[in-house]
Amino acid sequence: MKKILTKAPYKGCRDLFPKEKRLQNYLFQHMSQVAQQFGYEPYDGPLLEPVELYLAKSGEELINEQIYSFMDRGERQVAIRPEMTPTLARMIANVHREISKPIRWYSIPNLMRYERPQKGRLREHWQLNVDIFGAPSPFAEVEIWQLIAELFFSFGAKSNHFSFQINDRRIVDTLLEKLALTQEQRYKFYKLIDRCKKITPEQLTTELEQLVQSPQLRSIALEYLQLNSLKDLSQWMDRHHLAKESMATIEQAFHMGAQLGLETLLCYDPSIVRGLDYYTGLVFEVFDQSPDNRRALCGGGSYDRLLEIFGDQALPGVGFGLGDVTLVDFLSSHDLLPKTEKNNLDIYVSYQVEEAQIAALQVAQALRRQQLQVEMAPGVQKYKKVFSLADQKDIKALIFIGEEEFKKQYFQYKILATQEQGEYPLASLDEFLTKLKK
Amino acid sequence: MKKILTKAPYKGCRDLFPKEKRLQNYLFQHMSQVAQQFGYEPYDGPLLEPVELYLAKSGEELINEQIYSFMDRGERQVAIRPEMTPTLARMIANVHREISKPIRWYSIPNLMRYERPQKGRLREHWQLNVDIFGAPSPFAEVEIWQLIAELFFSFGAKSNHFSFQINDRRIVDTLLEKLALTQEQRYKFYKLIDRCKKITPEQLTTELEQLVQSPQLRSIALEYLQLNSLKDLSQWMDRHHLAKESMATIEQAFHMGAQLGLETLLCYDPSIVRGLDYYTGLVFEVFDQSPDNRRALCGGGSYDRLLEIFGDQALPGVGFGLGDVTLVDFLSSHDLLPKTEKNNLDIYVSYQVEEAQIAALQVAQALRRQQLQVEMAPGVQKYKKVFSLADQKDIKALIFIGEEEFKKQYFQYKILATQEQGEYPLASLDEFLTKLKK
Repeated sequence: MKKILTKAPYKGCRDLFPKEKRLQNYLFQHMSQVAQQFGYEPYDGPLLEPVELYLAKSGEELINEQIYSFMDRGERQVAIRPEMTPTLARMIANVHREISKPIRWYSIPNLMRYERPQKGRLREHWQLNVDIFGAPSPFAEVEIWQLIAELFFSFGAKSNHFSFQINDRRIVDTLLEKLALTQEQRYKFYKLIDRCKKITPEQLTTELEQLVQSPQLRSIALEYLQLNSLKDLSQWMDRHHLAKESMATIEQAFHMGAQLGLETLLCYDPSIVRGLDYYTGLVFEVFDQSPDNRRALCGGGSYDRLLEIFGDQALPGVGFGLGDVTLVDFLSSHDLLPKTEKNNLDIYVSYQVEEAQIAALQVAQALRRQQLQVEMAPGVQKYKKVFSLADQKDIKALIFIGEEEFKKQYFQYKILATQEQGEYPLASLDEFLTKLKK
Repeated sequence: MKKILTKAPYKGCRDLFPKEKRLQNYLFQHMSQVAQQFGYEPYDGPLLEPVELYLAKSGEELINEQIYSFMDRGERQVAIRPEMTPTLARMIANVHREISKPIRWYSIPNLMRYERPQKGRLREHWQLNVDIFGAPSPFAEVEIWQLIAELFFSFGAKSNHFSFQINDRRIVDTLLEKLALTQEQRYKFYKLIDRCKKITPEQLTTELEQLVQSPQLRSIALEYLQLNSLKDLSQWMDRHHLAKESMATIEQAFHMGAQLGLETLLCYDPSIVRGLDYYTGLVFEVFDQSPDNRRALCGGGSYDRLLEIFGDQALPGVGFGLGDVTLVDFLSSHDLLPKTEKNNLDIYVSYQVEEAQIAALQVAQALRRQQLQVEMAPGVQKYKKVFSLADQKDIKALIFIGEEEFKKQYFQYKILATQEQGEYPLASLDEFLTKLKK
């Protein structure tokens, strides 16, 4: 006896049945449409990349713990892409000299990370990636924020459903200089900021004490983490005689955003640093404002030196990633999911006597050539059966060829929304089409 | 100094730059549209599956030589999907009891095989998979052939550009019984048939001599491989007193196909067996008829027992796979590739003085909210520069806000196809939209 295999998908991966795949297609269509409305061009890259590509860009942690990597038969250490940015950087490094700036590209790849599956996080997900290269700051950042906002609006979201939490790595660096930390301490400090909302105030204080000896400097850091607005930030900088140039970009960006209707969406958040990533300027995360789903939906920022790993000059870029799993959670928490249970069809063609099969197939073929979606009965079906099928699916009209109709070379139709019914000669399908289109 | 990384993609994988990705999107859109016109519903599954899923279905060869497999951190032996059918079978096994038949599903997954890259074959490709379960034969097969033909027609292909080479595994089995081969010899015989057009007649005779001792039986096998039509086949069966039931399905299928306009497309081909696969009835391959590209574009057939590996009852299925790499070669060989070099945009919004930036951004935003594709200039640009950019891209209309226009709160426009130009107040964007839509 043969071994019987499991019917479950691999851990952390999804079987997308038609209901779920139609939903995913709906997300992808909106993503593509909005990206293209902003003039972004599609791209895609390989599923596998050399591991060293991720090693060069990300921290060791990602490589060691979170990546699917293995040796191929040619002794190359390869990884299933856990993110798109390194591939994007490699592709841009190939072509940036020949194309005019800014370069605006988007992609919706499938990615894999070795994670413990939990709400909003799976091992496999699809992620919209949108990036702009060679545009001035903060023009580029504001365009990216606009694009994200328009994408969320396109799903029916309102301004109070989400918010942009924004910071600038250069502001954090100003603080780090004041704190006079070593490189290793800086790394730890970044990680601490990243987690500061997830730990208790006591934990925060304890961990901070380990990093910063001087109580005076510690209090500057703690004050920083309490800041709530650009005004707060400005006063804090004045108070501690910090260089305010690091605030210039974020202020300009908020000003531009406000004039484009994004004012209520943009918030200053000192805890956003995008931890171990490669960002160099503005960084942001978009948060769901629903009390049930307070989590980051997407994140991004600006980066300057990504092409250096290919021996190329710096080229400023701004980008973000938005995963399909977190997006579905967001839409669900605001009751914005479309109905995708049923297959939406124009016409179901049935026949009630065997001799009518070819005639019915020919009707179906002619209707499809008019771009209609037509499902064909697989054999003789009684009228009652056809009506019950129409209930299960979402069908606009039914066609029947019974014994009488076949003899007279007619077909019967019924339009379900209006309950209108009638008949046409098989040779006069065009007239039926005209009626349908009305 | 840091190590400089390669800019090349991983061997056998593609970087899809916008030109190539727009082409792929064009293919995918046609695939989805035609599948949906036939009532097929979308699905997708995990990128990784347990290796045993492929082991259960395919021959050892695929597993040992052609699959990307590795041990995950949980000590599971997993594989990157080399094909979609095992995943499909697993998913169908989960739901087939609850949904009405026939089940019609399609998918366009990315797949990876460890192959030597060559024309038409890469390590990574995307493949349209269309399958129908629980429909009678040959209704199901003919619907699948119709769908393939309509898909090719939708790309502009003509009936003389491709052909279906069709056989039935049961016909081959009838021959194998006559030859009285052992199980192991049968396996070798299948592989020989599979290759018979790629080797010389002498090689064929030599290999056949090794398998079949009797010269009389060998000549029956050689006659078989010469058959060119169902009429030939029928006469050969009569001549050698073979059971003609094995011909019934293919005859009926050709008859139905003929009445749906497929007559000239359907050819009997004794060498089609779909080698090591799991097919049990009709099998087919679609061939490019161009002398430059004589290769199989897609293949498929009917299979009955795919669900048995999950302990489920047999459920008849018919399906096919069509890869994007071979499809592009086909379209290219018949000069059917669309132009995808340029980004197709509706409007480019520029400004010629710094003060006009916000006004220009607001114009761009308003136009996008009318579903237009609008690219925004990243900074002040001279008129001449804007015209030269318009040449590089494929843009319908240009908008300018220069010093004079900004003062008077106007914008200038130029519609490139008609060379029409003029101006509107910034507040009267609606009127401009009405003009554009005409």
